[in-house]
Amino acid sequence: MSKQTSRSGTFTQKADDLLNQFNASVMFDKELYKEDIRGSIAHSRMLANQNIITKEEQQQIEDGLIRVKSEIESGEFEWKIEDEDLHMAIESRLTAIVGEVGGKLHTARSRNDQVATDFRLYVLRKNQEIADKIKSLIKTTHHLASQHSTTLIPGMTHLQHAQPTNFAYHLSAYMSMFVRDYDRFISSYNRNNISPLGCAALAGTPHGIDREFTSKELGFDSVSINCLDTVSDRDFALEILFNISTLAMHISRLAEEMILWSSYEFKFITICDRFATGSSIMPQKKNPDVPELLRGKTGRTYGNLISLLSVMKGLPLAYNKDTQEDKEGVFDSVKNIEISLEILKELMGCITIHKENMQNACNIGHLTATDLADYLVSKANVPFRKTHDISGKAVKRATELGVDISELSIDELQKIDSRIGEDVKEYLDNRVSMDARDSQGGTSTNQTLKQLEYFKNWLELL
Amino acid sequence: MSKQTSRSGTFTQKADDLLNQFNASVMFDKELYKEDIRGSIAHSRMLANQNIITKEEQQQIEDGLIRVKSEIESGEFEWKIEDEDLHMAIESRLTAIVGEVGGKLHTARSRNDQVATDFRLYVLRKNQEIADKIKSLIKTTHHLASQHSTTLIPGMTHLQHAQPTNFAYHLSAYMSMFVRDYDRFISSYNRNNISPLGCAALAGTPHGIDREFTSKELGFDSVSINCLDTVSDRDFALEILFNISTLAMHISRLAEEMILWSSYEFKFITICDRFATGSSIMPQKKNPDVPELLRGKTGRTYGNLISLLSVMKGLPLAYNKDTQEDKEGVFDSVKNIEISLEILKELMGCITIHKENMQNACNIGHLTATDLADYLVSKANVPFRKTHDISGKAVKRATELGVDISELSIDELQKIDSRIGEDVKEYLDNRVSMDARDSQGGTSTNQTLKQLEYFKNWLELL
Amino acid sequence: MSKQTSRSGTFTQKADDLLNQFNASVMFDKELYKEDIRGSIAHSRMLANQNIITKEEQQQIEDGLIRVKSEIESGEFEWKIEDEDLHMAIESRLTAIVGEVGGKLHTARSRNDQVATDFRLYVLRKNQEIADKIKSLIKTTHHLASQHSTTLIPGMTHLQHAQPTNFAYHLSAYMSMFVRDYDRFISSYNRNNISPLGCAALAGTPHGIDREFTSKELGFDSVSINCLDTVSDRDFALEILFNISTLAMHISRLAEEMILWSSYEFKFITICDRFATGSSIMPQKKNPDVPELLRGKTGRTYGNLISLLSVMKGLPLAYNKDTQEDKEGVFDSVKNIEISLEILKELMGCITIHKENMQNACNIGHLTATDLADYLVSKANVPFRKTHDISGKAVKRATELGVDISELSIDELQKIDSRIGEDVKEYLDNRVSMDARDSQGGTSTNQTLKQLEYFKNWLELL
Amino acid sequence: MSKQTSRSGTFTQKADDLLNQFNASVMFDKELYKEDIRGSIAHSRMLANQNIITKEEQQQIEDGLIRVKSEIESGEFEWKIEDEDLHMAIESRLTAIVGEVGGKLHTARSRNDQVATDFRLYVLRKNQEIADKIKSLIKTTHHLASQHSTTLIPGMTHLQHAQPTNFAYHLSAYMSMFVRDYDRFISSYNRNNISPLGCAALAGTPHGIDREFTSKELGFDSVSINCLDTVSDRDFALEILFNISTLAMHISRLAEEMILWSSYEFKFITICDRFATGSSIMPQKKNPDVPELLRGKTGRTYGNLISLLSVMKGLPLAYNKDTQEDKEGVFDSVKNIEISLEILKELMGCITIHKENMQNACNIGHLTATDLADYLVSKANVPFRKTHDISGKAVKRATELGVDISELSIDELQKIDSRIGEDVKEYLDNRVSMDARDSQGGTSTNQTLKQLEYFKNWLELL
Repeated sequence: MSKQTSRSGTFTQKADDLLNQFNASVMFDKELYKEDIRGSIAHSRMLANQNIITKEEQQQIEDGLIRVKSEIESGEFEWKIEDEDLHMAIESRLTAIVGEVGGKLHTARSRNDQVATDFRLYVLRKNQEIADKIKSLIKTTHHLASQHSTTLIPGMTHLQHAQPTNFAYHLSAYMSMFVRDYDRFISSYNRNNISPLGCAALAGTPHGIDREFTSKELGFDSVSINCLDTVSDRDFALEILFNISTLAMHISRLAEEMILWSSYEFKFITICDRFATGSSIMPQKKNPDVPELLRGKTGRTYGNLISLLSVMKGLPLAYNKDTQEDKEGVFDSVKNIEISLEILKELMGCITIHKENMQNACNIGHLTATDLADYLVSKANVPFRKTHDISGKAVKRATELGVDISELSIDELQKIDSRIGEDVKEYLDNRVSMDARDSQGGTSTNQTLKQLEYFKNWLELL
Repeated sequence: MSKQTSRSGTFTQKADDLLNQFNASVMFDKELYKEDIRGSIAHSRMLANQNIITKEEQQQIEDGLIRVKSEIESGEFEWKIEDEDLHMAIESRLTAIVGEVGGKLHTARSRNDQVATDFRLYVLRKNQEIADKIKSLIKTTHHLASQHSTTLIPGMTHLQHAQPTNFAYHLSAYMSMFVRDYDRFISSYNRNNISPLGCAALAGTPHGIDREFTSKELGFDSVSINCLDTVSDRDFALEILFNISTLAMHISRLAEEMILWSSYEFKFITICDRFATGSSIMPQKKNPDVPELLRGKTGRTYGNLISLLSVMKGLPLAYNKDTQEDKEGVFDSVKNIEISLEILKELMGCITIHKENMQNACNIGHLTATDLADYLVSKANVPFRKTHDISGKAVKRATELGVDISELSIDELQKIDSRIGEDVKEYLDNRVSMDARDSQGGTSTNQTLKQLEYFKNWLELL
Repeated sequence: MSKQTSRSGTFTQKADDLLNQFNASVMFDKELYKEDIRGSIAHSRMLANQNIITKEEQQQIEDGLIRVKSEIESGEFEWKIEDEDLHMAIESRLTAIVGEVGGKLHTARSRNDQVATDFRLYVLRKNQEIADKIKSLIKTTHHLASQHSTTLIPGMTHLQHAQPTNFAYHLSAYMSMFVRDYDRFISSYNRNNISPLGCAALAGTPHGIDREFTSKELGFDSVSINCLDTVSDRDFALEILFNISTLAMHISRLAEEMILWSSYEFKFITICDRFATGSSIMPQKKNPDVPELLRGKTGRTYGNLISLLSVMKGLPLAYNKDTQEDKEGVFDSVKNIEISLEILKELMGCITIHKENMQNACNIGHLTATDLADYLVSKANVPFRKTHDISGKAVKRATELGVDISELSIDELQKIDSRIGEDVKEYLDNRVSMDARDSQGGTSTNQTLKQLEYFKNWLELL
Repeated sequence: MSKQTSRSGTFTQKADDLLNQFNASVMFDKELYKEDIRGSIAHSRMLANQNIITKEEQQQIEDGLIRVKSEIESGEFEWKIEDEDLHMAIESRLTAIVGEVGGKLHTARSRNDQVATDFRLYVLRKNQEIADKIKSLIKTTHHLASQHSTTLIPGMTHLQHAQPTNFAYHLSAYMSMFVRDYDRFISSYNRNNISPLGCAALAGTPHGIDREFTSKELGFDSVSINCLDTVSDRDFALEILFNISTLAMHISRLAEEMILWSSYEFKFITICDRFATGSSIMPQKKNPDVPELLRGKTGRTYGNLISLLSVMKGLPLAYNKDTQEDKEGVFDSVKNIEISLEILKELMGCITIHKENMQNACNIGHLTATDLADYLVSKANVPFRKTHDISGKAVKRATELGVDISELSIDELQKIDSRIGEDVKEYLDNRVSMDARDSQGGTSTNQTLKQLEYFKNWLELL
């Protein structure tokens, strides 16, 4: 039996070597071998159940497929580019093992629905595995946060000290992002958990198949509505690429902060030695390569997303060979986000937090200037727009004197606005200021603990 | 009161003209005026409810805001670049109308949570409006499909005639895509329906605000968990950009087919005159500009997605000015997808279907070759892989004779394989072949009507 | 005369309003009015020169076009969406002014070559204008650099202090990038300076035109080779989009550094007040909005590039309406890069450099550890790989003692390696170290001055 | 000697396995082994020439490196992930072979300038190799075109028949694109042919090196100006990614046309069997997989471009680990464009052109309607805008009668406009019409032959 089983008797020349090299997907789509064999077993069982093949034939086929699987896993299986793709490679080997009966497996099936099934099963599985890894990352982050609900750190906007916050609150922001990411992967899983098997080439099949049967065997929620759509649908792949891109973007933000925090200028954290790297020329260097690479890897997740969007644009129905370009990008994004999540989790578990440096940094930048404005609103009922201006003047005076706003004397403050009283001083303390921001979702230790509780419940309920 | 209200007393120079031109967002973010005023009214009511301002002050502010709104809608309002952004423009005008009390509106609020609220409200609204337009498009498509469940059209793969299908089935593929699109917009709406108001700059506020109050006033489901995240979160914007991109990609596929179908080579459809355009030089031309532009507009939806992904990468928390670049791309994608959906709906309602041409095209390309293979599987229990080969030989013979496979004589067929009987002829008829594909989700008229029923129920249940 | 002059007698319905709204480009392509009128005048002169129209007719047309131009520039001209595009709008108005002779202008021309000419002329002009602005930016940067060839700043890799460098050297890196950018715009200008006029719809024209004539009139280098290619070629647009993206990327790197440098942690520079902005809530804030926005705007330049690449993919020859989507993205990238270059130039001219802070920062991070390794290579002929390790031990010891490597006593150093002599101390001084890097292209003041000389010559020779 | 030679004595923990897996580039950057060894030999010769190492030491190093190279090429070399990267892998093995003297190779060098040199050499070489392949493709295209300068084919705009053209003219459009592509690769080669070697980490080196020496050894044009820029510059990589994207876009357009042309509807060409593929289910199918995949591969070239643009955005100077993400995308784009060019060249050499079908297609769509309008301009001096309308009416009448405009009787034509004479008939012939478009760059056989001559000279002069 010829390897190019898809080339029927209508062809007069054999496939060119260059064609195989260009066209064949077997060298990357072998990643899907588990799904392919699982799908074929389910299909053969359905065929037997519907009396399209006999029970004995089914058993032969299933045994053969199991043997192929173990050959693949032992490394014994020989992947050959002439087999064109994974499906042909497995079916060729199956037929070599079980003989002509192997040719019955492809009844009522096409490579179009076969690849749609394999790839969808893979993507669905990865949605869950990535979601699990996100959960692990949130757990480690939560553990770190739990120790820092009173650790002051300057909250920043525009990379400028803005207001005193606490470090657990800062980490909670990232937990919030990761929870949204988790939701997106699960939402995509649910929307796309639909069986393509039995759609055949594009139009269904005249054989009396039972799509509900294979759908159940493979763990799908239901059977797809329209086969023409099903064989050309790659929305599930686009969704995982987008969800990975957004997750990578969140990671890149945390990575950026870790790079800043481990610089000499910030010294807020130290990355543990086992995740730091050196320089081939500069002996003193300890470089934050891991967060840098986490940040850099965001680029390829964007690239893979735009690749597939470009591929799909303007394709007429149904299957076109262009769609073969769907897999490598997904494999690449999945592989990179999985290791990124793992290493980030490890990193979050081993960084050293320099609390003193974080807290000292709060004394720079007049972090409580907003509190002075708020004080005047509360005490003297001055409109905020006015008090904002008054506080600005206090900042200017403090800068002239080379001190922080919290260090201005009452005299100086009253020169700026006589309505300021002695009681202002406590408003200007960083910790008081942090704890004053006690509105829902705010940075006070009180509110932060509620947020940590929220994430704890979220982790437990999942 | 100075226009640059965000520049407190700490500044010694005034803003540069070039800075205003570069920095100001007012000329595009005025798109959000409704949301901004709605948000401000809700905020003022909450402030009054919490006794942070008096009922009278609140009433003055609300009346002032309503007046500003009507000035904007009448065109009377003067947008000035020196106002920096929408929020300042409205607040400046409010203060001009109501006096110093206007300055109290910004108590316990920052532009950071204000813009996060405005933009989120806009995106949530657009998720719903786009979903509604998708539904309308499905309705029109359904109406067209209902008339064509027995209209033969050659189903294609690789732009080659593959198997006979019906036109309603073909349209159902697009309805399936649009239903997924609808789901994505609604899913994103639900995930992101969370109030940012009260998050202030990044850390909450010391004022005794009630975030549940404003959340309810504005129709949000709940209050955001962590304010630091909330003011820098743009996931909701990325989601709408991705969902629009995927929808535009689906539209581009339909557009591509409409362009093909209205070519001289296909002649499957004619686009109504009111949606066709001519050539400035060639008098005979009627060009499918509308589907071409629908296809072309996909590009910008991809571009806007990649723009915002690039902007967000590696930004430290919380707000950075880079984020101002979030709006124009979203406005552009929204505007373009809205008009695309409208015009596509109109187009689907006015194209002329050339049934005869579609059906005649089914006689070209040996569309029932698979049926011959399937016939031999059923009748003679030959493995499909073998019958696939036999049928290939029949195609070759028919091509030599210059006829379609369905036109081969029984003699010729039996020369190829003696197991072929007289009864094969009915298998080779296009309509029989189409109706034979009666598996779930298949193209038979029977299955197609079930699909149309499915979409009808979907439309009614929504 | 009908406005939709491109709809010949073959149409039976008039264009739909929705169609006009969707299809018409006049509201954005009016940006090209100068090029359109310039091209039409050149075309009419050629027609007269070739006796296709009379001199009198040409004069009438040219006078009419000049009047249209002045109407546009005075604001008198009414742009109407029903005119479909710029070309029709101008021609309609021309015919209203000069009567039927206006209809002769479009002889031997199509909108396809007309828009190809207009858009190419615009892009060519912008290549030069952007190149000029880059040159201005380099000039200002050079001026700043000239004052800082002995100003120490810690050279960084991985955002970690690496080796002592000088600030002029740092700025020279950016000048190097901008010189490459300049080269790319000029190279693109030269490659694409080819006249499309006379290509007509796609195949040339039977009229006896003279393409060399119009090419010269419009300042092109030569006439395009193949008309089919010419009317569908948008490489020149892709090139400017890519060149702007790369330039924006370079600017984003400088912007990132300016944001870091103006943070409290670095305090290397202060952005002048007229280019800084404040916070609506935090009175003390002076935010580096300008560099942030410069960084953020990179995103849209990437988006516009990917948009047009997506649009062009898979388009059959020749003109397709999709191509209309080429302009808005180019206009947007051009507008944004032009103002970015202007404001960055201003910014480079007004930042305050805190030399002391830069120099003090060099005392942190054992910047001369490489010098210790190099010292041992030179003095004791130890392989670098060994000395790298020895110096690493010295860094460790210094860290234990809480000092910089340059502050270690000779005793301590000799304990680590006895080959270290008294003369090592001068090697460990930052300024000595900086000046020691005197290899070609290196950071020594000597080499830096050569680089400044290089850029000075470059500026003068251009 | 430790494998992690970049980890100096300052580290207290060894690198984590997960770190190696995440961080190590050796498994992909080994692609650069030739360039790395070439660069190291050049560097060692320079060191000897400058008396930094002895001639004997240099000889040992060079012999060792040559042995390493032959070990790599024989497959004997063991790539280990613990070696971190290619450079360390080679240096480790070198030191194992030659002993401690191997450690002297890295004197006056850093991985930063080493990788910048290796990668730049690779990209420069690929610019030339791709340019060569483009030239081969143009040759084959030219050969095909030479046979078809009188073969009529309907020129299209908007995928609608527009005007009669010839097939050689059509192919010349693609040759024009490929010539521009060639120019871009060569232009990029010239702009970036600059030596980074000797830049060391970021600031040059105190050793007395000779950068001109290594620059010459490695075939660079000159030495880079500023080392800080040089080690962080990836413009050359962005340029090749963009140039590949644009080339892939051109290929996608030709691929789209080949897909259309080989459809049943067009039947303009047949793809040779050795480059066609079949269906696993439909025996009659011969699918144009190769052009489809050529079109689809465009997506990944776009993705790789946007990946690296995203990576580079906002990176502070100089080297950051993010930049390690530069290579895989370039390798992928290069590999895919190289095989695309090869297979497209083969394809152009083996397609069958169905001249009759192309010519028959010219009889559909009133292709000479523009000629009727032009006839009236020439004969009766009617403004083109009027004749355009008259010709439109003739098209309408022909459509009513079910004939092509060229088949209308003189009577019918004169009823439409009495100025039409008997001589009009020759104007309405497709071949006459094609040859009438004899303006420069036009489609007449005369002009087409000039274009073929142009490309022939271009090929010969190169």
